[in-house]
Amino acid sequence: MSANIDLVIRPATESDIPALLGLIWELAEYEKLTHIMVATEEQYRQALFGARPVAEALMAFVDGQAVGYAIFFHNFSTFLGRPGIYLEDIYVRPQVRGRGVGKKLFATVARIARERNCGRYEWCVLKWNTPSIDFYKALGAEALDGWLMMRLDGDALAKVADLAEE
Amino acid sequence: MSANIDLVIRPATESDIPALLGLIWELAEYEKLTHIMVATEEQYRQALFGARPVAEALMAFVDGQAVGYAIFFHNFSTFLGRPGIYLEDIYVRPQVRGRGVGKKLFATVARIARERNCGRYEWCVLKWNTPSIDFYKALGAEALDGWLMMRLDGDALAKVADLAEE
Repeated sequence: MSANIDLVIRPATESDIPALLGLIWELAEYEKLTHIMVATEEQYRQALFGARPVAEALMAFVDGQAVGYAIFFHNFSTFLGRPGIYLEDIYVRPQVRGRGVGKKLFATVARIARERNCGRYEWCVLKWNTPSIDFYKALGAEALDGWLMMRLDGDALAKVADLAEE
Repeated sequence: MSANIDLVIRPATESDIPALLGLIWELAEYEKLTHIMVATEEQYRQALFGARPVAEALMAFVDGQAVGYAIFFHNFSTFLGRPGIYLEDIYVRPQVRGRGVGKKLFATVARIARERNCGRYEWCVLKWNTPSIDFYKALGAEALDGWLMMRLDGDALAKVADLAEE
């Protein structure tokens, strides 16, 4: 499938940040989440290449053009007692889909998980995004239907933080 | 509510590990997940206090007895461009529930999130665990119903990792 494609996947460097941000904006549009996309290039320099990096990024290039990325970090399983990898985002431009770029990007993160002896590789997907869910299931992934994600942010988070001082 | 309770919440130290593992076993029983609980004390020494810690733990004590814990790590939001906190586990012994221990433990993690300028505080809950879901919603948490968690592990993870080399 990918025999005739000039595909390069490698860790992002600082000079990739403008291209990376452009692709993140495209993903925010696809996920209909542009209203929460507020990240800046400076934040990415800190997050990926600062004194205490909090995430890692891979870039995908086809014919020398940046066409996709994956951003991940280490999580931790209490019951396994070992770190895993959590894939926060994966994105491939619509123009180059169906040529194995997403699969290779996804698999490269899996290879990093294996190299680092991680017990699990996890991610979330929007429930309406059935093409992605089918793609992952075809690769052997399990849907954790029994779990519900919850979140506190903004004022609600500040209010709960106050309860710790009472 | 908690005025008459001798409650201390503090970061775990290495000497707390045996008590912590005992509480993790209790949680595995409550969640009906003992079949995947394989973590050892040595793994916890590495994960929490090794050269590269991958998680942090808080311990809760009532009358000097360890009765609960919270384990968390930093995640990262692509769209916010900032780290958040992910609460992997929170547990309070049934014998001391209803006295504000869980709320204080949960709020202490929120306070840490605020102190570290984290954009979000997130966690997962088993869908059948409605007492917990109601507890979190009462604190202002949002249920991210639109997202599905997925996972690769074991042989399926190894097979996907192989695809990166093709």
